Amino acid sequence: MGPSSDTDRTFLREAIELARAGAAAGAGGPFGALIVIEGRIMGRGQNRVTSTNDPTAHAEVVAIREACASLGRFHLTGATLYTSCEPCPMCLAAAYWAHVARIVYACTRDDAAAIGFDDAFLYRELSASAAERRIPQLPLLREDGVAVFREWAGNPSRIGY
Amino acid sequence: MGPSSDTDRTFLREAIELARAGAAAGAGGPFGALIVIEGRIMGRGQNRVTSTNDPTAHAEVVAIREACASLGRFHLTGATLYTSCEPCPMCLAAAYWAHVARIVYACTRDDAAAIGFDDAFLYRELSASAAERRIPQLPLLREDGVAVFREWAGNPSRIGY
Repeated sequence: MGPSSDTDRTFLREAIELARAGAAAGAGGPFGALIVIEGRIMGRGQNRVTSTNDPTAHAEVVAIREACASLGRFHLTGATLYTSCEPCPMCLAAAYWAHVARIVYACTRDDAAAIGFDDAFLYRELSASAAERRIPQLPLLREDGVAVFREWAGNPSRIGY
Repeated sequence: MGPSSDTDRTFLREAIELARAGAAAGAGGPFGALIVIEGRIMGRGQNRVTSTNDPTAHAEVVAIREACASLGRFHLTGATLYTSCEPCPMCLAAAYWAHVARIVYACTRDDAAAIGFDDAFLYRELSASAAERRIPQLPLLREDGVAVFREWAGNPSRIGY
């Protein structure tokens, strides 16, 4: 990924400023993010969980969705995700699904935990076995589900991602 | 969580049918999900990644967002998430953020991997150390970020989640 640059600092400062402004305006938690491709900002996000009643509206998810919408595609190849805090597992996985190339962040998951957010706890839960997790997960009707997967795999017009 | 019940089978079959119908209609991958609270369906989701250019539009995220929007709140306390496939890390973390009580699923992450989806790979990535991950993550400007967190922590009108 190469060393950090003045460009990285400039974009990351903007993500941090989005965090500050969003929290001050009551949009949600103090988190901001940018998607940058070839030096251009393609998406901006502020946390909007509490103001829009959407627990998935983390800054990174909002920025990824905005960038994809404006580009008209579901991959962000070559993008850098700048975020005011290390992404939680939801946002990190979203970055993988979006094919983001690199991530630059300011606060850590432990900094987030220190002000009451569950990021560090979630990393431990995701790494635990299903049996050890706080949310119980029950497998059922696997064959019925796999039958749908087989149909998909046999459909020549499917679009993968 | 108690054993599986006929009620669980009924709702899970509906999630699987959403998966089949969504894939057949070209909405996206073969995945469907329901949010059920006290026996009532509060949210339905089909994967819409490719049709809406939104890499976060997995069935579970769509169902969680719909349920929260219709209930006007950002937690789904007491909810069961029925999903045609074991949630990927993004969707599992979204279920935690939404305070879902339990998850019932049909296909496994390995079934998903077998038809070309990255679920199993993503679980390995999330459990790896940052240095070992395929997407590089660069920490920078931590003190600038933490200053925003301190402002948040000192704001008596903040709304946590």
